Amino acid sequence: MAHFHNVKHTTYYVELIMQQLTDTLMETNATVVRQSFSVKFAYDVYFTTHLFDGKNTLLKDFLHQHKSDTVKKIFFVVDEGVMNHHGYLDEQIRNYFSHETSIALVDEIMVVPGGEAAKNTESLLLKIVDAVDKYSIDRHSYIVAIGGGAVLDLVGYAAAISHRGIRHVRIPTTVLSQDDSAIGVKNGVNYKGKKNFLGTFAPPVAVFNDFYFLTTLTDAEWRSGISEAVKVALIKDAPFFAWLKENATVLAARNMEAMKYLVQRSAALHMEHIASGDPFEMGSSRPLDFGHWSAHKLEQLSGFTVKHGEAVALGIALDSAYSFVSGRLSEDDAKSIVDVLLDLGFSISHPLMEIKDESSPVIKGLEEFREHLGGKLTIMLLSAIGQGEEVHELDIALLQKASAWLGTI
Amino acid sequence: MAHFHNVKHTTYYVELIMQQLTDTLMETNATVVRQSFSVKFAYDVYFTTHLFDGKNTLLKDFLHQHKSDTVKKIFFVVDEGVMNHHGYLDEQIRNYFSHETSIALVDEIMVVPGGEAAKNTESLLLKIVDAVDKYSIDRHSYIVAIGGGAVLDLVGYAAAISHRGIRHVRIPTTVLSQDDSAIGVKNGVNYKGKKNFLGTFAPPVAVFNDFYFLTTLTDAEWRSGISEAVKVALIKDAPFFAWLKENATVLAARNMEAMKYLVQRSAALHMEHIASGDPFEMGSSRPLDFGHWSAHKLEQLSGFTVKHGEAVALGIALDSAYSFVSGRLSEDDAKSIVDVLLDLGFSISHPLMEIKDESSPVIKGLEEFREHLGGKLTIMLLSAIGQGEEVHELDIALLQKASAWLGTI
Repeated sequence: MAHFHNVKHTTYYVELIMQQLTDTLMETNATVVRQSFSVKFAYDVYFTTHLFDGKNTLLKDFLHQHKSDTVKKIFFVVDEGVMNHHGYLDEQIRNYFSHETSIALVDEIMVVPGGEAAKNTESLLLKIVDAVDKYSIDRHSYIVAIGGGAVLDLVGYAAAISHRGIRHVRIPTTVLSQDDSAIGVKNGVNYKGKKNFLGTFAPPVAVFNDFYFLTTLTDAEWRSGISEAVKVALIKDAPFFAWLKENATVLAARNMEAMKYLVQRSAALHMEHIASGDPFEMGSSRPLDFGHWSAHKLEQLSGFTVKHGEAVALGIALDSAYSFVSGRLSEDDAKSIVDVLLDLGFSISHPLMEIKDESSPVIKGLEEFREHLGGKLTIMLLSAIGQGEEVHELDIALLQKASAWLGTI
Repeated sequence: MAHFHNVKHTTYYVELIMQQLTDTLMETNATVVRQSFSVKFAYDVYFTTHLFDGKNTLLKDFLHQHKSDTVKKIFFVVDEGVMNHHGYLDEQIRNYFSHETSIALVDEIMVVPGGEAAKNTESLLLKIVDAVDKYSIDRHSYIVAIGGGAVLDLVGYAAAISHRGIRHVRIPTTVLSQDDSAIGVKNGVNYKGKKNFLGTFAPPVAVFNDFYFLTTLTDAEWRSGISEAVKVALIKDAPFFAWLKENATVLAARNMEAMKYLVQRSAALHMEHIASGDPFEMGSSRPLDFGHWSAHKLEQLSGFTVKHGEAVALGIALDSAYSFVSGRLSEDDAKSIVDVLLDLGFSISHPLMEIKDESSPVIKGLEEFREHLGGKLTIMLLSAIGQGEEVHELDIALLQKASAWLGTI
């Protein structure tokens, strides 16, 4: 048959023109075309002060980099808490874009409630999606989020799923989002009370960290994000840990120059890790989650009354103690880590974190941590300060010992 | 101040250890860390017959490739139309996995309605997301969709946003999904009547095309997907168009060997285009959408009574005619394209596609096409058979002329 001949002929032909491997799988009488490509993602993380001051051209310069024949829209969504502390912001943003001809500010500057509640409220997600429709915000337009980590996660998710992804700019306003979460590639919302059950990996096109927003944080908010810097120093960068040790007291006393340095160094370390590792977490390992298996569980057990940063400090203390009692880390180093956390103003013990026996509730965090990523349990411990080591099992007796050791300090 | 010194020192230090470009932007007193990484995506597209026959080990072999220490779950979502035609499928899938120890079939095989309605129904999306929760389907588990393009788009979207992306396997059952949509990287659902308003770019981990499913399609469904093969041949592959011309009549008569070839060749060409181009459509151009600006509008104008494939055939006829009347393509070539479409059983004219003046409704499709991708209007035309050419403007007078020329055939 002519067509059958053609089929034979063209399987061969496709192999040639595709320059792809086309195998004939003889046993199953099947053929395969193997697809493979890489997608490049690039974004800049800026550090500045007074981003929307008329004299600060950083954001405008960034927007003008992307030449275009069409006027691009820019839509702002702002955390209510930020707007309350920085009431001038609405007017300042409008002034900032008032003389722009190639960028059209969308008239509505949307204000949404901040904190974890933002991620629990489906109507907020749909409010942003509806604005995309209402204002004809296309893929080449910009959605800018100003706020803490929860608002950035919410807006980032809305931007990622609308039209399969609208350009997204993040302006984090807390220590935690500036030094860790906002400079990464994840977004998400909660679903039926499950944290980040819905979300995507979608890098922003740019991040602008404005240190001035940090001046209006409460002391607890200021401190909260520091634990992620301690974490990344411990697993990656001994000199940074030494610096944190030296500066723990002034950081606790809200020295801004020290904080600027901390934020930049921590952000750079997190970014370097993302770029050199597994950005979209296709494997089972998540090295940046040192101290997080128990922290996530504690947050949940406390009904989220323990803040993420406080919980991470407690988790770091526990896993550092475990690294010591399991023979990986010296007692001096473990003690030094705990001292830095205490100098920063963190607690290192909490009733819900105590491990007395196998039924201690925080232990359930191990299996939940495994489940979230799937595959084999993978936990980061310390073999030295600045040096992480992955293990696939934690021993309950040693966890009890670690918990007891923390109780002696 | 000591801390200030440290800041200076460490900006330099970060530059060294990050091996990233860290600029000091003097004018704005800002710093920047530039992030850049590539993510590799790879997936196999298989072509077979009777995928779930006990003797066909193709799917099992694929699943066993990914070694794991944990038992992986596999969850099936099946198009109701497919299940109606292939009632044995439920039992066949259960038998296929009955002796597996490393793969655990989720007990529920979910059946969802097919066709565009699947993408208009939020409760269906949530039904799949809820199953992910209920059956603890983690990122290393598999969600498999069996069905036409709409069901694959719905299930693919649910898989992409649950836990930020669960491994997704597609088993397309129509010509249109096997030769075009299912072998690509997009998913999506409709929102407030807007097609694909919500969605992501998320490559599957594998695609299995089972030709046997094509035997139960209606004649209209069988024909519908052929227009995408004609389209990709016209913009990329003159020999494939010559083959289509030679085989148009036997294709219309449902010759399966000819169809197998068409599906494989069309899928390979689409895949090659995705890999070599702009897989996640970050630019303004979408070359594979030859003939689609008017097709999308016609679908909408007809209240979706005109099928996508039929609309694309009409769109190809119009843009081929425009390529001729604008001096790009010879009249003989334009005539040859129209003849192939007619031999395949497609209509080349439709009252809603006629362009008599500027107020003809289909013309609005141009602006809507631009809006969807954003940026500058970019339309693919033909400079020869097998050779596309992008333009940024269509002339209304020439569109009228093209429409009139089609009326003379």
